[in-house]
Amino acid sequence: MLGNKKKYIVNGNSGIRAQIQFADQKQEFNKRPTKIGRRSLSRSISQSSTDSYSSAASYTDSSDDETSPRDKQQKNSKGSSDFCVKNIKQAEFGRREIEIAEQEMPALMALRKRAQGEKPLAGAKIVGCTHITAQTAVLMETLGALGAQCRWAACNIYSTLNEVAAALAESGFPVFAWKGESEDDFWWCIDRCVNVEGWQPNMILDDGGDLTHWIYKKYPNMFKKIKGIVEESVTGVHRLYQLSKAGKLCVPAMNVNDSVTKQKFDNLYCCRESILDGLKRTTDMMFGGKQVVVCGYGEVGKGCCAALKAMGSIVYVTEIDPICALQACMDGFRLVKLNEVIRQVDIVITCTGNKNVVTREHLDRMKNSCIVCNMGHSNTEIDVASLRTPELTWERVRSQVDHVIWPDGKRIVLLAEGRLLNLSCSTVPTFVLSITATTQALALIELYNAPEGRYKQDVYLLPKKMDEYVASLHLPTFDAHLTELTDEQAKYLGLNKNGPFKPNYYRY
Amino acid sequence: MLGNKKKYIVNGNSGIRAQIQFADQKQEFNKRPTKIGRRSLSRSISQSSTDSYSSAASYTDSSDDETSPRDKQQKNSKGSSDFCVKNIKQAEFGRREIEIAEQEMPALMALRKRAQGEKPLAGAKIVGCTHITAQTAVLMETLGALGAQCRWAACNIYSTLNEVAAALAESGFPVFAWKGESEDDFWWCIDRCVNVEGWQPNMILDDGGDLTHWIYKKYPNMFKKIKGIVEESVTGVHRLYQLSKAGKLCVPAMNVNDSVTKQKFDNLYCCRESILDGLKRTTDMMFGGKQVVVCGYGEVGKGCCAALKAMGSIVYVTEIDPICALQACMDGFRLVKLNEVIRQVDIVITCTGNKNVVTREHLDRMKNSCIVCNMGHSNTEIDVASLRTPELTWERVRSQVDHVIWPDGKRIVLLAEGRLLNLSCSTVPTFVLSITATTQALALIELYNAPEGRYKQDVYLLPKKMDEYVASLHLPTFDAHLTELTDEQAKYLGLNKNGPFKPNYYRY
Amino acid sequence: MLGNKKKYIVNGNSGIRAQIQFADQKQEFNKRPTKIGRRSLSRSISQSSTDSYSSAASYTDSSDDETSPRDKQQKNSKGSSDFCVKNIKQAEFGRREIEIAEQEMPALMALRKRAQGEKPLAGAKIVGCTHITAQTAVLMETLGALGAQCRWAACNIYSTLNEVAAALAESGFPVFAWKGESEDDFWWCIDRCVNVEGWQPNMILDDGGDLTHWIYKKYPNMFKKIKGIVEESVTGVHRLYQLSKAGKLCVPAMNVNDSVTKQKFDNLYCCRESILDGLKRTTDMMFGGKQVVVCGYGEVGKGCCAALKAMGSIVYVTEIDPICALQACMDGFRLVKLNEVIRQVDIVITCTGNKNVVTREHLDRMKNSCIVCNMGHSNTEIDVASLRTPELTWERVRSQVDHVIWPDGKRIVLLAEGRLLNLSCSTVPTFVLSITATTQALALIELYNAPEGRYKQDVYLLPKKMDEYVASLHLPTFDAHLTELTDEQAKYLGLNKNGPFKPNYYRY
Amino acid sequence: MLGNKKKYIVNGNSGIRAQIQFADQKQEFNKRPTKIGRRSLSRSISQSSTDSYSSAASYTDSSDDETSPRDKQQKNSKGSSDFCVKNIKQAEFGRREIEIAEQEMPALMALRKRAQGEKPLAGAKIVGCTHITAQTAVLMETLGALGAQCRWAACNIYSTLNEVAAALAESGFPVFAWKGESEDDFWWCIDRCVNVEGWQPNMILDDGGDLTHWIYKKYPNMFKKIKGIVEESVTGVHRLYQLSKAGKLCVPAMNVNDSVTKQKFDNLYCCRESILDGLKRTTDMMFGGKQVVVCGYGEVGKGCCAALKAMGSIVYVTEIDPICALQACMDGFRLVKLNEVIRQVDIVITCTGNKNVVTREHLDRMKNSCIVCNMGHSNTEIDVASLRTPELTWERVRSQVDHVIWPDGKRIVLLAEGRLLNLSCSTVPTFVLSITATTQALALIELYNAPEGRYKQDVYLLPKKMDEYVASLHLPTFDAHLTELTDEQAKYLGLNKNGPFKPNYYRY
Repeated sequence: MLGNKKKYIVNGNSGIRAQIQFADQKQEFNKRPTKIGRRSLSRSISQSSTDSYSSAASYTDSSDDETSPRDKQQKNSKGSSDFCVKNIKQAEFGRREIEIAEQEMPALMALRKRAQGEKPLAGAKIVGCTHITAQTAVLMETLGALGAQCRWAACNIYSTLNEVAAALAESGFPVFAWKGESEDDFWWCIDRCVNVEGWQPNMILDDGGDLTHWIYKKYPNMFKKIKGIVEESVTGVHRLYQLSKAGKLCVPAMNVNDSVTKQKFDNLYCCRESILDGLKRTTDMMFGGKQVVVCGYGEVGKGCCAALKAMGSIVYVTEIDPICALQACMDGFRLVKLNEVIRQVDIVITCTGNKNVVTREHLDRMKNSCIVCNMGHSNTEIDVASLRTPELTWERVRSQVDHVIWPDGKRIVLLAEGRLLNLSCSTVPTFVLSITATTQALALIELYNAPEGRYKQDVYLLPKKMDEYVASLHLPTFDAHLTELTDEQAKYLGLNKNGPFKPNYYRY
Repeated sequence: MLGNKKKYIVNGNSGIRAQIQFADQKQEFNKRPTKIGRRSLSRSISQSSTDSYSSAASYTDSSDDETSPRDKQQKNSKGSSDFCVKNIKQAEFGRREIEIAEQEMPALMALRKRAQGEKPLAGAKIVGCTHITAQTAVLMETLGALGAQCRWAACNIYSTLNEVAAALAESGFPVFAWKGESEDDFWWCIDRCVNVEGWQPNMILDDGGDLTHWIYKKYPNMFKKIKGIVEESVTGVHRLYQLSKAGKLCVPAMNVNDSVTKQKFDNLYCCRESILDGLKRTTDMMFGGKQVVVCGYGEVGKGCCAALKAMGSIVYVTEIDPICALQACMDGFRLVKLNEVIRQVDIVITCTGNKNVVTREHLDRMKNSCIVCNMGHSNTEIDVASLRTPELTWERVRSQVDHVIWPDGKRIVLLAEGRLLNLSCSTVPTFVLSITATTQALALIELYNAPEGRYKQDVYLLPKKMDEYVASLHLPTFDAHLTELTDEQAKYLGLNKNGPFKPNYYRY
Repeated sequence: MLGNKKKYIVNGNSGIRAQIQFADQKQEFNKRPTKIGRRSLSRSISQSSTDSYSSAASYTDSSDDETSPRDKQQKNSKGSSDFCVKNIKQAEFGRREIEIAEQEMPALMALRKRAQGEKPLAGAKIVGCTHITAQTAVLMETLGALGAQCRWAACNIYSTLNEVAAALAESGFPVFAWKGESEDDFWWCIDRCVNVEGWQPNMILDDGGDLTHWIYKKYPNMFKKIKGIVEESVTGVHRLYQLSKAGKLCVPAMNVNDSVTKQKFDNLYCCRESILDGLKRTTDMMFGGKQVVVCGYGEVGKGCCAALKAMGSIVYVTEIDPICALQACMDGFRLVKLNEVIRQVDIVITCTGNKNVVTREHLDRMKNSCIVCNMGHSNTEIDVASLRTPELTWERVRSQVDHVIWPDGKRIVLLAEGRLLNLSCSTVPTFVLSITATTQALALIELYNAPEGRYKQDVYLLPKKMDEYVASLHLPTFDAHLTELTDEQAKYLGLNKNGPFKPNYYRY
Repeated sequence: MLGNKKKYIVNGNSGIRAQIQFADQKQEFNKRPTKIGRRSLSRSISQSSTDSYSSAASYTDSSDDETSPRDKQQKNSKGSSDFCVKNIKQAEFGRREIEIAEQEMPALMALRKRAQGEKPLAGAKIVGCTHITAQTAVLMETLGALGAQCRWAACNIYSTLNEVAAALAESGFPVFAWKGESEDDFWWCIDRCVNVEGWQPNMILDDGGDLTHWIYKKYPNMFKKIKGIVEESVTGVHRLYQLSKAGKLCVPAMNVNDSVTKQKFDNLYCCRESILDGLKRTTDMMFGGKQVVVCGYGEVGKGCCAALKAMGSIVYVTEIDPICALQACMDGFRLVKLNEVIRQVDIVITCTGNKNVVTREHLDRMKNSCIVCNMGHSNTEIDVASLRTPELTWERVRSQVDHVIWPDGKRIVLLAEGRLLNLSCSTVPTFVLSITATTQALALIELYNAPEGRYKQDVYLLPKKMDEYVASLHLPTFDAHLTELTDEQAKYLGLNKNGPFKPNYYRY
């Protein structure tokens, strides 16, 4: 919960793949749910989300008809109509995207191969609610290859790639999702996944907790047959822990968000690349010689600092935690308070998971052309609201780039309106998506096959051995050759030759 | 001449600045001029250049009328019609772009400031032929502020920003340029700059040598009054040296391409950033753990290697020069022959300035999904022609990204069709444009004010002191504080306190 | 237990401080205690330990008399004779060493300052058994300043700095230790610390577990008054866990070896420096361009790899754990099996904590002049015994450097006979000693002041808040300024403003 | 001449190789010769030089008799007595050192091999005056293998390794040198090399210019037969240029000091390593988190900055040259004036080649424990003389380490009394010695074989092709594989396939 959390944007459309920039507003809203009105609010489309939506590149369906998919009669080539997508005819485009994604997700493909004999998910009936992208499609088709039946809805009203949804529908997956759903559509789609005659899910794969919430609310009896929940997001995990604390969690749940591979690889290594990518795509700035302050030296901050230092920036760090602060020192960064450097820096980057780290007072003192952006976990880190005052002029100079202009002419360059830079302005490496998807698949297998009693009605971390297995499935990509322990060595170390190789508290 | 050379693409339009991707085909053609047919060919628009042109982002003039600017009657607000641009009404948009560029070119602004008293270019009549961008506009208006009169044409039929041209015309500069000129337009524009009643240039600022060529061919007598030529491109410099060798150079010329600041900063530091940017924007790949071979360890290669190593790639280097090879070793790169690693690498990057560095044989042996791109000086490094054979299928997956597919399904990812990646797929940092523009301005001042006899009819490098001056003008950007020699120290070192500080052969 | 563990050598003597190279043999022996004969063996002085001992630099006592300290009658200036050191007259020299060390241990000095009012160790009677160095002296005198009474023996028969022991005795500390104790001396000294008329310890500070073992064996009743044990070494901690497992641990014990600051800072940051130092001091080799294989990518391996990569070496990594392996990949290292690169590398470094990682077979295949060394946790990693065969010639070329010569003339350069390089051939930064000593002091304070029931008869890690406190005490050294949470932020994060700031499972 | 210049110390003795720390006082003296008294001064042994001498490790001759070698009657095993060394009986020890050095100087060994057929130095009579070390011995024996006759003296009264000199004498080289010569001995030895019945040198290999000076002064007629001088040191080159300027240079001279391989590899890459080594060996400090200011960003400064940044130090740079200053900025260093950071830094390193860069005023303002050292070219950079005032106390805490203590107790840690740190406190990598020795050999071959008229009575740089050849001879050490140009490529580039590959002004 404290760890910095990144989410991703997705690629892909037909012909020319393009970058989708969808607002992370829904996720962020869910993060701190209010009791009343949450549902109605969560689907409202704010000005900013519309804006970022419209800046997405062209799609094959950009000139599509305006008919709601719910009103269309569509069948796939095998005659099934158990799906609801924008346009089933886009299936071929989507298939190509999926094929390209397959090439970049060797771990899932390896799982499929290993499952040719045994079907570890035979009999599993999985209902899923995630972003629907080419990478998700590879996951779903892998689950299918492992023996599972799946039904799927989207966890975000903007993020569905219609062509991919079409391709999945065409190949027989009951998918209920399209880009630009209304809130009502959103819940309707989820309901269509679970409320089926003669089919009842026994596994849940969720991203954000909305699917889980819906079943709790509408079909609590379903939990009797459900063997477990796999949840990927900070928000969803937070909600599961709350349920558990309240004694209301009635099936085992697997927290895949806090797995080692996710935390260490997603946050550190991906941010190391996406900070550069996000800044370049929005500002075309040169990094060499720039003075940068990075607020927060967790995994995300470490990644940002390492990348910018490597590119020749001079990096300052702020921290509240003395241990992380000492790490920053040893890594060669001056540890300062934001106030001490705010007048001189060229870039301010927040990675704290905290709120109001950059205040109006800081913004007032920044120098002309200072760039301000957020790599943390939500849109709270920069007090953007404080900039919406009459004396300041906002000028949108590019998609995701605003100049906020002070009366004296000073301009601050605000990226993504303070939302996540890496979500809004860069792409997420397939490598990360692959790690996450593989972890999800393994978590499903584990929960589905676990002997009675191994998991209780609680939230679990992935067993270390599975974390290690996820990692091992990604090594061939790098032509990396693992060493095996000899019997003698394993005995000396008191380890099983196949792992796990570290105690649970190992820090990596 | 051997040094790797990079060129740039330009940014900017009204409202939303966007990336222009124009073919570097003309430059490349000029590089090795054939005797016959060169002129007609150089303006022909090939399939590929049209393609990359069409991928440029939207412009205010995208919905413009189709009338040729040559057929339009336009006046600026002061009543002048001594210009020819697409649409004078776009002047306001262009002005904003220029103002933004001014913020990023403090060195030129400092030159303006210092010239408030003396006008070092008073009386200068400069005819220019360069890319017409916001940055060029800042240069031109600086030359104006220094006392010069200017007339300007474009050195590339695609690269003109119409809004900027309009803004320049509006503020009184006779500009003859628009995006999408025909070859006939191209020469007509140049001619309109030089063939003027009652005005004769006494300085030339050229980029590529076409303007110089035109005057040589049509108005050789003009050289009597011309004090010098300032040339920026590899190509143009090559042509000047040829003229000089042939005894036909009749005025002094300044080679600004080989200045220290250009060579060391442009090539090393900019490529360090643009290789990452270019690869990310085209492929969204993750750098960590990737195996890369970089062909050539000159400044460009050094920059590419440093960046990729810093991002966690494993980098191999090929070299022909044992000194550069030994540098690669000491910098921590395995020095190999391309054949030795071609089967295992994920990325091949050429930075040699040579031809056929990557041959069909290499391409045949690459592994699936290998990315191939060129950071060198022209489109010769990768033998792309060898890929245009019937058994291979080309698939355009994105702008600037082709999959070339072998009969067995292997795909090679070819970027920018083997043309310069940094020109085609990334942006050029304003910092570099600023260094180049400042160097051009100082070269003009030097040639214009040089006492009789300092420069003969030859090609000169910028005096070291001017190189140092260019550098010093850029230090304030970094809030960098230079130390001054004491009298005692200057005496001890045998130096003038104001420089130059190094012998000419110093290598930096 | 798996984590790589480093120990240190110490500096200092009078006038010219010098490097002590004592064998880590005792520690290593203790690591895997055999049931019988352990005691007699553990003090025997092997050929190798004598050798490294004799290579230590000159000391003020080198020309000392040969009388055993046990046979001497000595008094300090206050008339006390409750100590046994080599020569009380060396006290002044030792005092200067302590004063210099004080300058480098600001955290302990800060603890003294804060304790001026309250004495958190008032009433504490601490018996200690550690290396006796200037840094330990600073710790002991800090404990004294905090209110404790101390009695001290050495945990190693070679490592005592006689001058420092003298200085401590002079200022009133009952110290029983000298360099070159016999095994009988060793236990006699320990016994003199605990077996005192009218004084009984209530706290134990141990390094290796010998003191604890002695009390268990000889004076088990003492544990009734003992509030806790603080243990610093891998070995000692291992023994405590065994006691605990066997239900024989009768007081709470604090494992300071696995504290975050120790693990992350000592292993990663110190090894990053000591690998370079150790290799340089022994071989004067150049790092640039060298091919190196590092076995193991834990914290120690990460430090070694980062340093060598930064110095221009080409680094390969071997790993058994797929997660660490994937980290190596993402950090830019080729992951290989040792066999794959053994013929080509210039240096082999082990950091695994495992045994027989480098076998005779590997050694046979190494190229001429290959350097082999161990940075792991004991002398097991390289199968040195396999090199003691008739056909191989050993040639000692420097202290700690052997050439092992094959019949064909091939030479392998073996450092420190396969014992720890950083212990034998480099120095340990005071920074690390400071972190460890501060952690020990805080652990003593915590155990001594803990309310009844907080700690049971078990082995505990230092509370995270104390880890954070240790870190915070070291920040002033770096002029580092920590940011404080606002009330609003603390509330938002659900944290106490003073920490702890992270959940226990946080990985840093 | 401006370039920073490093010199080296040498390793090796019999049995246990050890580090020699000889004063660079003589070199430094020569640098700025005064007119009167120079000779008598240059040989006087100051307190400090004695000190560093005495700190050298033990030698086989440490217990030698005190008889001057000039008074001894010695013969080698072949009966020759045409030499003068300390003790011919040490030859065997020396031979072993030479054999070890041969393993590390593959380039010279390759030259020997290639010379098996042709003897490019057949007929050459070379008189040499250099440091006499194992590496020099490899050079001399290589010259012999190439056909030359050699006679040799030492260029420094301290640096001779007696065992090596003995080994050379034993194998028939007339060597006149021992460690601890008096000034009179020094010139006597040189004279014995050149003033020989029936033998007259035709080539000079000098280091520092003393040999050249002696011949000029005593035997000017010898120059009639001398084909050229090869000079390696800054000082010697400086003197040659002065001779040339004065029209007094009567033979061609080759300046090997300014060759690319020497400048770029010696200064940049070696300093990158020796700065760390020198600081560690003297102070055992930890680099992580330390604030460092490096004065001067030439090659030496670049090396120091890169190394310290890589080890986690925070590095500031001072510069007088705006181009180097801009490089520092782009490389990620804050460019400051020394005054701005002097109060906060932990380390001050000078690399300027200038004088009084660190003044008493700076020293007064440094914080307690600040370390001050010099990596530049002489002992002028730090105003050490200003510290020799009554109110300051000097305390020698280790060899090469002084604490200078202010009245308020502040201590400054001065290394090597302000002389070159890398000369005094670290070792020089054999790699550099190998490059230099190979360059010297090739320069001798070039001058000796050059056709009449190629070289005039002037000072020359090594032809680029030879620089490239030196580099190529070192590539096999790194198992580096150079790519060869195809005929087509060579033609395209206008290059000879065998080089040279770059224009003379190329900066690398």
